[in-house]
Formats: sequence, C-alpha cells, structure tokens
Amino acid sequence: MDVRRIRNETPGCRKRIHLNAAGSALQAQPVLDVVLDYLRLEAELGGYEAADSAQDRFAGTYGSLARLIGAQPGEIAYTESATRAWDMAFYSIPFKVGDRILTTTSEYASNALAFLQAVRRHGVSIDVIPDDPYGQISLEALADELGKGGVRLVSINHVPTHDGLINPAAEVGALTRAAGALFLLDACQSVGQLPVDVGELGCDLLSATGRKFLRGPRGTGFLYAATGVLSQLDPILVDLCAADLTGPDSYELRPDARRFEGWERFAAGQLGLGAAAEYALDVGLAEIADRIQLLAQRLRDGLADLPHVSARDRGRQQSGIVTFSHASLKASEVVARLAAQDVVVRTSEQTYRFDEGVTPEPRVRASVHYYNTEEEIDRALAAIAALR
Amino acid sequence: MDVRRIRNETPGCRKRIHLNAAGSALQAQPVLDVVLDYLRLEAELGGYEAADSAQDRFAGTYGSLARLIGAQPGEIAYTESATRAWDMAFYSIPFKVGDRILTTTSEYASNALAFLQAVRRHGVSIDVIPDDPYGQISLEALADELGKGGVRLVSINHVPTHDGLINPAAEVGALTRAAGALFLLDACQSVGQLPVDVGELGCDLLSATGRKFLRGPRGTGFLYAATGVLSQLDPILVDLCAADLTGPDSYELRPDARRFEGWERFAAGQLGLGAAAEYALDVGLAEIADRIQLLAQRLRDGLADLPHVSARDRGRQQSGIVTFSHASLKASEVVARLAAQDVVVRTSEQTYRFDEGVTPEPRVRASVHYYNTEEEIDRALAAIAALR
Repeated sequence: MDVRRIRNETPGCRKRIHLNAAGSALQAQPVLDVVLDYLRLEAELGGYEAADSAQDRFAGTYGSLARLIGAQPGEIAYTESATRAWDMAFYSIPFKVGDRILTTTSEYASNALAFLQAVRRHGVSIDVIPDDPYGQISLEALADELGKGGVRLVSINHVPTHDGLINPAAEVGALTRAAGALFLLDACQSVGQLPVDVGELGCDLLSATGRKFLRGPRGTGFLYAATGVLSQLDPILVDLCAADLTGPDSYELRPDARRFEGWERFAAGQLGLGAAAEYALDVGLAEIADRIQLLAQRLRDGLADLPHVSARDRGRQQSGIVTFSHASLKASEVVARLAAQDVVVRTSEQTYRFDEGVTPEPRVRASVHYYNTEEEIDRALAAIAALR
Repeated sequence: MDVRRIRNETPGCRKRIHLNAAGSALQAQPVLDVVLDYLRLEAELGGYEAADSAQDRFAGTYGSLARLIGAQPGEIAYTESATRAWDMAFYSIPFKVGDRILTTTSEYASNALAFLQAVRRHGVSIDVIPDDPYGQISLEALADELGKGGVRLVSINHVPTHDGLINPAAEVGALTRAAGALFLLDACQSVGQLPVDVGELGCDLLSATGRKFLRGPRGTGFLYAATGVLSQLDPILVDLCAADLTGPDSYELRPDARRFEGWERFAAGQLGLGAAAEYALDVGLAEIADRIQLLAQRLRDGLADLPHVSARDRGRQQSGIVTFSHASLKASEVVARLAAQDVVVRTSEQTYRFDEGVTPEPRVRASVHYYNTEEEIDRALAAIAALR
C-alpha cells in the first residue's frame, strides 16, 4: 500500500493526527472532488438536468457498492445513513405478536430504540444473547436460543462502535440461516474496515454508512437486501422510487432493493459514496484490514505500557476501534487535551451496552485507519503518556 | 428586486433559460458556497470535528427555517427530502380502523401511495374531495365531508406539481381545525414561491423541500410539526436523535420536532438549506411571489396566443408552474427540442390525478422563478411558437 500517496491525497492528514475513523473518517480528495464537481454541475445545469446527464454514473454506484460487499447491484438501496438503511430493513419486517428478536449486549442504541418500539407496537420480545468469555456474542447461547423456536430475527452489530471487538458474524449467519430466521447485520463500522462479503456472512440484510471506514461523504449509507427476502418484507415507507401506482387503489413495489429508497436524495453524495467504494477496492480490502490491525495493535501495545491507562476493549478478534480510560482524567478531558495537541480522538458514550445499564462512564475512543502512520500512533501514545 | 445582481450570482442563468424551478431550481452561488466550503472543512478536520466547530451554525438553521414559515425553531425537523418530511408526519399518525383521510384530486403520487398503505395496514378510508369549478379543492364539499365525522386527517397539496393551481390552504386549514382533524400540508412547491405562514394556513404539519423554489441543495427538506400536535403522533422511526434510552426497557422522545429527524445527515446540506432560507428572506417572500406571478402571467398570455398549444393549468389563483400540451408533438419531444435551443422545461407525468386515472398523457411544464427575465420568457415563447 502506497501510504505516502494516500496521505498526499488526504487533506486532513496534513495538520492533525486524526484517530476518529469510527466517527467520521478523513475523505480522500478524489472522492471529495466527485461530490464538489457534481454540486457545481447541479448549479450550472439545474439539479434534474445534471442528473439526466449523469444517469450512467448513478447506475454505476449500485455496481460499486455491490462489488464492495459481494452482492448483486439489484440488492443495494442508497440511503441517507446507515441508521435509515437499518430502519428500512428492520421496520419493514411484518412482526407478529410473540415473535422473538435475538440481539447482543453490544447492540447500537438506535437499534435498541427500534426494538423497544417493536415491543410496544407488535408485542415482540427481545432476548439479549450473553457474551462469550471474550465479550463477543456467545455462539453456544445463540444456538440454544434459536433452538427454542419462535425467532423471527437475529440482529447484531458486526463491529460495535464502543469497544474493540469484532463479532463472529459468519458463524451467527450460519446458525441463523439453519434456524430459518432473518439475519440483519449492522455493518456500520465494518464496511471499509474489513472485507465484508454478504455470501460468507450469510446475512439477509446489511446496513452500512459512507462516512466511517469507507471514507465517503456524510449523509450517505446503503442497505443490502438479499433478493430472496424481499417478498418477506413490507417497506415501512414507500414513495415514487419504491413503487408505481398501478390503479386508483393499487401499487406495485419495485422488483429490487430500491423499493427501500426514497426518490429524492443527496445525489452528489451518491456519486461520492460510489467513488469511495471504488477507492477502497483500489486500495484493497484485505490490505486495508491488515494495516488497520497493525496500527491498532501498535496502539494497544503502547497503551498497555501506560500505568495510568486502562484498556477497555473486548473481543478475541479486535477491530481498529481502540478504547481506554484514564485513571484520573475524564474521557472528555482526555479528548480536549489531546485535541489541543492536534491528536483527534473521541469519547465513546456508553449508552450502548444492554448489560452495563444505559449510562456508564464514557471512555476514550481512538480509531485508526490505513492512512494513519506508525509515527502518528507513537506520537499519540507519547501525548497520552504525558497526560496527568 | 435587483434581478441583475441575483442573476450574476446564479451560475445557471448564464447559458440557458432554465424554466424548471418546480423540478430543481438554480442555486445561488452564495448558497452553493456554504455547502462546498463546509464539505471542504469536513475533509480538512474530519466530519465530526467540523460539526463541533459549527454547532451554532447548525442550530441557526432551525431559526432560519422557522422564520421562513412563521414557526418556532423547535417546530422544525431537518430531513433528507420533502417526501421523507411528509412521511415522518403521515406515518407517525396512529390511525385506527375506520379513520377517514380527506384529500384532493391533485394529491402527489407518493402521498397517494402512503394512503394506500394506510388503507391496507390500518383499515382507514380515503375520500377524495371533488374540485371546485376552478379545479381547486371544493371548500363546500370539504365542509360537507368534515361534517360527516370520523375524519382523522386532511392532507392536501398547497401547489400541485403538475398544473398551475394554488389550493386555498388557509380556508382548508380553518375548516379542518374547526372539525378537530389534523391538517397536513404538502408545501413542496410553495415554500420559496409564496409567503407561507403556518399560523395563517392553520396547518398542524407541513413538509417542504430545499431543491425547488427555495433554491437550496438537493437531498434536503424539512418538516414543520406544531408543538401542540406532537403528543398525538408516534414517530414511525426513531434513533438517537429522536429519543434517549432511559432504561433497559424505556426511552423518551425529544420534546421538540426533532424527534422526527435522524441523527446522521447531509450536514453541509443542512447549512445550505438554512442559507437558502436566509437568501429567500433577504430577497423578500412577497417580492418573490409577485415576480413569479408576473413572469408566469406573461408566459400564460403568450401561450394563449399560440394556436397549436393548449394551456392545461387549472386554478383561480395560479402558481409559477405553467403546463401545456402541443397539438402535434409529444411532451417529451417538446422538451427535447427546446433543450436543443437551451430552453429548459420538463415533462409532467400525469400520474398524479386521482380523477384522471393513473397514466394520462404527460404535459410540458415550464416553471418560472424570480431569476428569470421577461426577455427569457419571450425567447422561450418564440421557441415554442416555432415548434411544428
């Protein structure tokens, strides 16, 4: 990987050590330029006329996103965010009273909110699968719960936002498929960080964002919906993109995953998202994952040597999201003092752990990307070491 | 109004006669620059760090949008489009079996799709109020239907997308309020074209877009939800912006209209939308409406003199959306041949009329904005006159 070239075309690398890919990563100039150029074209031609002139490019974004995750173009819907992608999948499941939803301790809080709405609206029940000894979802416990029957949906995070673990999604997928339940994978933090292949993972539905490890624009995301599950879902919202009126009292849904899209959209963002997918594919998904592992390990090793820092990561397999606490400083103070030295990290609000209650103490989250360097990690470690 | 200055700062005015404000209007450079500058800032600082640095500006957008329509800032939700704004209002109404929805012949097709879903899901019924002799919603018929009872919602377009009329929204609002029903106004084509004051209109919920007469970015819209109706609605989708988890089994919705927002968004677009609102307010809403009336009348008068053109507009009060048919050319041919002369108009697919079936013949739609000139109208008329 030509890290020097990549950094040269990443404006955000110049002045700061940016360790917040898990929030919103630094964009590459070629991807940004796709967005800026298209916005200028809209101002020049008009929004609809610009879209007319770029029809092939819009169509191409589905192919790029499909290639990124091993799907078919018709299985991709462009959305405004990963959350809306997840929503369009989850809320479109026609739950019945008594349906069971299985999830993990580390499910994302927005998803948890949707579960609670489903409990109220549809009378479903939520079962939180306990962790294995590494903090990941226990496959044994999952198999047990699936065996009890009545499970409509297994919904988990691939890579939680708030600690270092990677859930064994492919194993979850195999168990879920064997049990005949739907598998919805929140891949918000994994697409762009790890090779994600929907066939290997065995997921029916997958949500992802542009702004995080994929290095795309804010306000973009996408949903993968396997062709085979479309008939099981009733899109929670429909518009002229999703369906055609076929008579005064009837409509017909699009045959593909775009039944989950809205017609109007951040069009420039869609082109930017497609460009970000192509950029990641060009860099190489395996190479990206390897480099993130290398840098995260260097950071974890360095933190382990600091007596006033406690690592908070879980997981047998760990991600590029590194979390820790400081013995005497609050997470927000650590973030502010590092920011003053141009080291950008973030607090991770611990509202996300079903098993730790809703508001545990925030942690510091430093998330690395392939555009970071070993030297940056060492400088960040030195800055953390100096905090008292 | 300083039309010369306005045109000088509108790049799309230079080469073409753009008569598609009802599709997506030409943006002003100062508004475009707000979006481009913020996107560059995101690339420089990172998406979250840019947002941190612009918190006051994001907060200010609610004030700008509120001022535009006579609302309070807490009654505004930023959305990805007018359709999603409308969806968040409509789908959040907890309909009961037998609830009645009243609408017009000219309701937007996406809204009609949502009505049909509500019929299937909730067992509501849809009553289409007939037109008055001018083609607008008949206030007499509306009053009759409201008098029969059982009406949960009156949902109409302010300015339909496909013909020239302006519905008497304030009168509809007064009747609806008196009957105790909810009033949802689709103002997608009116905000930025007419002075829209939610107090005068008497609407409970109003949806609007950025890209049309407001001259804002694509992928932006907003919902007005009156504080007094929030308690009647159950947001169809919730995430961390809309609600806080308050315990393992409980959540609390935000106290304001932002309970209808998603957390992640096209952030640059939000700033652009706010800038577009301020731009419109600076130009003057009454002045904008007057100039659009003037230009639309000039266009209608000119078309009336052309023997091979049939005006298709309805309405006693008419908007800046001018529609017509050509005696021998299909709408799509008219659009293509005018485009070759740098006159930009659009077809209007007539899927929108409950009373005309779902696929009547498309028309030509020429929609004017205040940045157009009398000379442009005359040149467009000459080009239309020459089409045989």
